[in-house]
Amino acid sequence: MTRRICVVVTARPSYSRVRSALQAIAAHDDLELQLVVAASALLERYGSAVQAIERDGFEIRHRVYMVLEGENLVTSAKSTGIGLSELATVFDNLKPDAVVTIADRYETLATAVAASYMNIPVVHIQGGEVTGSIDEKVRHAVTKLSNLHLVATAAARERVIRLGEPEATVVVTGCPSIDIAAAVAATPALDFDPFEKYGGVGPSEDLSNGYLVVLQHPVTTEYEEARRQIEETLYAARDIGLPVLWFWPNVDAGSDGTSKGIRMFRERERSTSFHFFRNMFPEDFLRLLCGATAIVGNSSVAIREGSFLGVPAVNIGSRQDGRERGRNVIDVGHDRRAIEAAVRDHARRGRPPSDPLYGDGRAGQRIADCLASAPLTIRKRLTY
Amino acid sequence: MTRRICVVVTARPSYSRVRSALQAIAAHDDLELQLVVAASALLERYGSAVQAIERDGFEIRHRVYMVLEGENLVTSAKSTGIGLSELATVFDNLKPDAVVTIADRYETLATAVAASYMNIPVVHIQGGEVTGSIDEKVRHAVTKLSNLHLVATAAARERVIRLGEPEATVVVTGCPSIDIAAAVAATPALDFDPFEKYGGVGPSEDLSNGYLVVLQHPVTTEYEEARRQIEETLYAARDIGLPVLWFWPNVDAGSDGTSKGIRMFRERERSTSFHFFRNMFPEDFLRLLCGATAIVGNSSVAIREGSFLGVPAVNIGSRQDGRERGRNVIDVGHDRRAIEAAVRDHARRGRPPSDPLYGDGRAGQRIADCLASAPLTIRKRLTY
Amino acid sequence: MTRRICVVVTARPSYSRVRSALQAIAAHDDLELQLVVAASALLERYGSAVQAIERDGFEIRHRVYMVLEGENLVTSAKSTGIGLSELATVFDNLKPDAVVTIADRYETLATAVAASYMNIPVVHIQGGEVTGSIDEKVRHAVTKLSNLHLVATAAARERVIRLGEPEATVVVTGCPSIDIAAAVAATPALDFDPFEKYGGVGPSEDLSNGYLVVLQHPVTTEYEEARRQIEETLYAARDIGLPVLWFWPNVDAGSDGTSKGIRMFRERERSTSFHFFRNMFPEDFLRLLCGATAIVGNSSVAIREGSFLGVPAVNIGSRQDGRERGRNVIDVGHDRRAIEAAVRDHARRGRPPSDPLYGDGRAGQRIADCLASAPLTIRKRLTY
Amino acid sequence: MTRRICVVVTARPSYSRVRSALQAIAAHDDLELQLVVAASALLERYGSAVQAIERDGFEIRHRVYMVLEGENLVTSAKSTGIGLSELATVFDNLKPDAVVTIADRYETLATAVAASYMNIPVVHIQGGEVTGSIDEKVRHAVTKLSNLHLVATAAARERVIRLGEPEATVVVTGCPSIDIAAAVAATPALDFDPFEKYGGVGPSEDLSNGYLVVLQHPVTTEYEEARRQIEETLYAARDIGLPVLWFWPNVDAGSDGTSKGIRMFRERERSTSFHFFRNMFPEDFLRLLCGATAIVGNSSVAIREGSFLGVPAVNIGSRQDGRERGRNVIDVGHDRRAIEAAVRDHARRGRPPSDPLYGDGRAGQRIADCLASAPLTIRKRLTY
Repeated sequence: MTRRICVVVTARPSYSRVRSALQAIAAHDDLELQLVVAASALLERYGSAVQAIERDGFEIRHRVYMVLEGENLVTSAKSTGIGLSELATVFDNLKPDAVVTIADRYETLATAVAASYMNIPVVHIQGGEVTGSIDEKVRHAVTKLSNLHLVATAAARERVIRLGEPEATVVVTGCPSIDIAAAVAATPALDFDPFEKYGGVGPSEDLSNGYLVVLQHPVTTEYEEARRQIEETLYAARDIGLPVLWFWPNVDAGSDGTSKGIRMFRERERSTSFHFFRNMFPEDFLRLLCGATAIVGNSSVAIREGSFLGVPAVNIGSRQDGRERGRNVIDVGHDRRAIEAAVRDHARRGRPPSDPLYGDGRAGQRIADCLASAPLTIRKRLTY
Repeated sequence: MTRRICVVVTARPSYSRVRSALQAIAAHDDLELQLVVAASALLERYGSAVQAIERDGFEIRHRVYMVLEGENLVTSAKSTGIGLSELATVFDNLKPDAVVTIADRYETLATAVAASYMNIPVVHIQGGEVTGSIDEKVRHAVTKLSNLHLVATAAARERVIRLGEPEATVVVTGCPSIDIAAAVAATPALDFDPFEKYGGVGPSEDLSNGYLVVLQHPVTTEYEEARRQIEETLYAARDIGLPVLWFWPNVDAGSDGTSKGIRMFRERERSTSFHFFRNMFPEDFLRLLCGATAIVGNSSVAIREGSFLGVPAVNIGSRQDGRERGRNVIDVGHDRRAIEAAVRDHARRGRPPSDPLYGDGRAGQRIADCLASAPLTIRKRLTY
Repeated sequence: MTRRICVVVTARPSYSRVRSALQAIAAHDDLELQLVVAASALLERYGSAVQAIERDGFEIRHRVYMVLEGENLVTSAKSTGIGLSELATVFDNLKPDAVVTIADRYETLATAVAASYMNIPVVHIQGGEVTGSIDEKVRHAVTKLSNLHLVATAAARERVIRLGEPEATVVVTGCPSIDIAAAVAATPALDFDPFEKYGGVGPSEDLSNGYLVVLQHPVTTEYEEARRQIEETLYAARDIGLPVLWFWPNVDAGSDGTSKGIRMFRERERSTSFHFFRNMFPEDFLRLLCGATAIVGNSSVAIREGSFLGVPAVNIGSRQDGRERGRNVIDVGHDRRAIEAAVRDHARRGRPPSDPLYGDGRAGQRIADCLASAPLTIRKRLTY
Repeated sequence: MTRRICVVVTARPSYSRVRSALQAIAAHDDLELQLVVAASALLERYGSAVQAIERDGFEIRHRVYMVLEGENLVTSAKSTGIGLSELATVFDNLKPDAVVTIADRYETLATAVAASYMNIPVVHIQGGEVTGSIDEKVRHAVTKLSNLHLVATAAARERVIRLGEPEATVVVTGCPSIDIAAAVAATPALDFDPFEKYGGVGPSEDLSNGYLVVLQHPVTTEYEEARRQIEETLYAARDIGLPVLWFWPNVDAGSDGTSKGIRMFRERERSTSFHFFRNMFPEDFLRLLCGATAIVGNSSVAIREGSFLGVPAVNIGSRQDGRERGRNVIDVGHDRRAIEAAVRDHARRGRPPSDPLYGDGRAGQRIADCLASAPLTIRKRLTY
C-alpha cells in the first residue's frame, strides 16, 4: 500500500537540502509525496523558496503562513505556536502516514510537535549533529519526538542512539544536499553569469582571478552582538581585496542587527567590489562555490557541501561548533584579522581533496527507500 | 540578587505535585515566585486547580486560557500552539530568570519551547522517568530543551545524564508530591466526611470496612479503546463489592470516550455503591488513600505517593509502563478479571511498608535551594 | 456557471434555522454548497449539531475548532480571533464565490471579517432585526460587512436600507426556520416519545395534560446575574405545576453561571417533574412545541417559529427586546411571579392563530434562488 | 474618578493622526492613558511608529505583534485574528474604562471586536467618512461596534446618526491630525534639510524651485493592478520634471506589487531626481508639504491636512472616493498624462486658501474632554 509522506519545508536552505529526497519520494512507486511549504520558504524577502519549488515541478499541497513580523525572540516563539496550530489542521486534512521534518530550525519543532500530538510517526532528517546555538536544543528535542532518524554521518547515528533511540530506527543515509553537490561536481565549470542571471545589488565583477563567497547568519542566542559580528566579516572581506559575492541570510531573530550592519556598510563603503545576492538555484550556488577562492561565514554549506566539493572554507564563530568537518575548514573567531589570515592561509595550502564525510551523492534515494520500507510506529521508549 | 522564578501550572495534578516547591520558592529570600496558571488548571470541569491555588494563598501573575474545545488529537495540538504563543507574551511581560515546567503533560512542552526560544533558562521538574504513552515523547523532548533538571530518583538522574545532559545540571531532589504525603502520613486518620465535604454524585457510603479509590486517565495514543478500557475497570470495581470512590480524570484527547463509558455505566448500574468525585484537596485525597483497601487505575499517584504511604495499588494498562515502582504495585492489563484478582491478592498479602523511592518529604525545600544557587544558563551542548 | 456558496454553521440553533436553505442550495443546479461546521456546532456538550448535519446527508467540507475553554468574556473574544484566523485558511482552500453567515452570534462576525478581508462577497441571513444584547452590535456590524442581505421581514429590510445598504441588495426571503415549522404544522401530532428517543435526565413524564418547554440562554452582557436569572425561571416553572421539558442553552460567556444554577436546582429539587434535554431534531422539537401549553424563556424560537405555529410564549428579560413579535408572546422580567402569571394568562386567552410574520414556509428556496441570481460584488458604499 | 482610556495605535499614519489627542488624554486630570502599540506600528520596515512614540515621551503599556508575514489577503485576515486574540489578553490585563480605535485600517476592527466582546465601551475616532475601498466596510462596521463616536466633520456626524447611532453619542471634534497641521502652519518655513536628517535613497535635490511630494498606497481590493497603478504615478512624476520626494506606503495586502513596481523603476530610471523616504516626524512632513508644489498620490493627508494647509493636491484613483474635500484637490485616474496635467493645472491656478473642513486645530483637547465627560456604556440599540 502506498504510504503518504508529508514533508514540511520551512526555509530556502532546508529546501535545497532535501530536494533530491523530495524527487526520490515523488518518483517512488510505494510513496505519495505531500509537500507543505511554510514559514520563510513562502516569503519573498527570504528568497521565495516556494518559487524554486514550483519551478522544480513539485505539487504544493498546503502553504502555511506562520512568520509573525517583528524579528525578535517573542515573535520567534509566537510564530512557532502559530505554525504548530496551523500544521495540526494541515495534517488533519492530509492524513499522512508519516511526517518528515528537517534539521533544526526553530519552526522544525512545530512540525514535530504537531505530528507527535496527532499520533503521526515523525521522521527526522539530519538529527544527531552537534552545533553551538539554540539549534542545539531544537535538534535534539526533535530527535526525542521522532520515530525514525535518517542521519548524515556515522557519528550522528552514534549520538542519536546514545540519546536513547532504538538502533533499528537510526539509519545513515548521508545528507541529500550532497546529492546536488555530486551532480554539480561532475561538471563544475561556471556556465552562467551570476550578475546577469540573478541581478542583486552592486557592481558586476570580474571573477576570473578568484572571488569570495560569503554567507553569514545571525546567531540567535547572541542577539545584540549580531551587528558587531557581521561588521568583522564585512571589513575582513573588503580587506582581502578579492571580489565578494555576499548572500543575505534567511530570517531569524537577530537578523535586524545583521541587516542593519550590512546596509550601513553599503552606505559607507560604496566603492568596494561587493555584490549582494538574495538567493540562487542550488546548483548555480554550488557551481559558484566550486570556483570560489574560499567560502567565508558560518553556513553549514561550507562544511557539508564544501567538504565534498573541496572548497576552502573559513568558518566564523560558534554557529557550527561541534559539527563534524573535513580538512577544507579553518575555524576563526569574529575577528577581521583572523578571517583575513585564514583566507590567505587557504591560498597557500591549495585546494583540499573531496571528502565523502556527509554523503556520497545517493542520499535522496536512500531516504525514499527507507520511508517506503521502515516500520512506522508512534510508540517509543528510552532504550535505557 | 533575587531571582525571578516563573512556574507554569497547567493541570490539577501538576499543582498538587509541586505545591510544596511553590511554597518554598515563595518563602525563599533569594527567589521571587511568578506563578502562571494555564490550560485545564483554569477550568471548572477539570477541577479548578486555580481555586485551590488561590485558597492556598498564592498570587497568580497570569492566567492563560489555551484549551481549544473538541477533545481530539487536532485540538490537543492546536491548544499547545495557542499556549506556546500566549506564554511567549507572558514571559515577555514577566522577564523571569528561569521558567519551571513540570513533568510531561502535552502543555508542558509549550512552556519549554516558549522559554527556550526566548533565551530563558528552562528548569524541568520530574524528568528522566519512563512511562508508556505520548508522555514519553514529551518528557524527554522537554529534557532536551531544559537547562536544569530537578529529578525525583537516582535512576531518573542516570537517564537524564545518559540523554547527554551535563552531570552538574541534574539534581536529585525527590518529588515534591511526596512532601505532602509525608505530612499526611504523620497523622493518617480520616478526619473529614468526603461525601459531605465534596458532594459529588452517588450514595454516601460506609467506608469503615474498606473501599477502593479509582483514578483512571484515558491513554491518548489508544484513543478509540478509551471506552472499552474504562468499562473493564468499572465492572471490575463493581464486582469486587467494596464501596468505590471514583475520581474523574483530567482533560486529554480521548476523555470523551472515557466520560461516555462512565456515564453509560452510571445509567445502567444505578444500584452500585459508586461515588464520583471531581477533585479534592491533595491532603484530603492522600488521607483517603491512606485508608483505602487499594487504589486502582493508571494514575502515577498510586506509584509515587502510594509507595511512600504504603497503599496497595493495582496499576492497569500501559500508561505507567517503565515507571520505577515499589512493592506496593501489582500490574495488570485492561481485564476486569485480572483487576479484581489483583485487589484480592493485595488483601491476602497485607499492607506494604513505606518506601522512600520517590522522595523523603523534603523535596520542595531542595528545589527552592537549587533554584537559588544553581548556575542559570541557556547554553548547552550534548556531552557526547 | 456554478457558484460556490460557502455556508459557515457555528451553532446548533443556527443549523436548525438554515437547514431548508442548505437543502435548497445543495439541490440547486447553479450552486455548489460548501458547508463548514465550526465552533459549538462541533461540540458534544452543546448538542453536536455536526451529528445532525451528517445525519441529514450534508457533506462537511471543513471542521473548524475555535472555542477556547473558559466561558468568560476573554475566551469569547479569543475564540473569535482563532476562528477568524482559521476561517481565512478554509476560505483560501475552498475559494468560494460567496460566504454566507447567519444571524448574530459572536462567531458570526469571524466569518464576515475573514471573508471581507479576503475580498469574498458576504451574504448575511437574518440581518436588520433588533434585540437587546451584545448580539445587537454583532448583527449590525455584520450588515456593514455584507454585500447581500437576505432578511426575514419587511421591517428588517427597511432597517438594513436605513443602515445605508443599497435597496437592490436587500431581499425579504422570510426566515428559513419557518420552512421547517410549516412542514411540522401540516401534521402536528406528537409522533414519538421524547424521553425514549432522546434520553436526557429526569423522570419520564405524562404530557397528555399539558407541559412547559423551557429554553433560556445566558445574556452575555449581564454576566454575573446569569445565575439569579436562571433561578427565577426554574422556580417559576416548578410552581406552575406542569411537567417541564428543559433544554440546555448553547455555549456563550456566562453559561457557567447558568449551568451552575441549573445543577444546584436539580440537586435541591429532586422531586420536581423536570426533564432536561440536550437537543432534538428540529422537527421533533417543533412538534413538541406545537403541543406545549407554553414555551418559556428567552429563545427567539418562541417568537419566530412560535408565531407561525401559534404557540403561547412567555418571553423573559431583555434578550429579545426590539424583535418583532406576533400576538403569541407575553413579555415579562426575570421574576418568578410574573413568569408564572404570564403562563396562566395564556391559558385563559386560548391558543393564538398562526401568523406569517417571519415567513410563509418557502424561505429556503428563495434564498437559494437569490444566491444563484443576485449580482455578487465586494464593492459597496454608504447610500448617503 | 479617573477613567482609564486605552488607545490602540496600529500604524504610523494613525499615530500621527491622534498624537495631539494622546497628549491631551495624558495631560487630563480625570484620564489615565493606556497606550497599546500594535501591528505595523512596531515594525521597522513600516516606519517604526513605536520609536516616534517613545521619543514623544509616551509610556507604552503593551506591544502587540500581530502582522503575519506574506502580505496577501489570507495573511491580512489571519493577522486580524491574531490581533483580536492578543488584544483580548491586553484588555484583560489593563481593565480600561474605554477602548479607543482609530479610523478604518483592517486591524482597527480587531480592536473594536475585542473590546466589544469584553463588554468594554468602544470609542471610534474618525467614523462616518466615505471612501472607496475595503476600508469602507471596516469603518462602518466599527461604527456599529462603537458606543461613542468622535468625528471630524458635520457631514460625518450626520452619516453616523443615519447609521442608527443615538445623536448624543456622536460628537464633532475635528480631526486631531489638523492640530499638528495648525501648529506647523504657524511657522511654515522649511527649517531642516530632509536629505541630511532622514537619509533615504536617491540624490539630495535642490528644493528651492518647487518639488513634488508623492505618497501612494496600494488599493487592497484591486490587488493585481497595484504594480500598474504605481507605475503610472512614477512615470508621471518623472515627466513633470520637478524633484520628487517619494514616501513608501505602509503595510497592506498588495504592497508587494507596489514595492516591486517602485524597485524596478529605480533600477531602470537611475538618473531621475527621485528621493525615497521611509518616514518622517509628522511636523517635518507637514512642513515639507507646506512648501511643496503639489502632493500627488492617494493619501488622505492630501485631503485632510492639505485642505487646512492649502496645499495643491492631485488625488489618484478610487482610494479617497467619497471623502469630503476642499478646493485644493484635483481628482484623476491612474493615468500618467492626467496626473501630469493636474499638477500643471494647479500651477496655473495658484495656491488655494486654508479651509477648516477637517478641524480648527483644537481636536485633541476636545477628544480628551469628551472622553472625560461623556457617559460610557456598552448598551446600544438601533435608533429605528
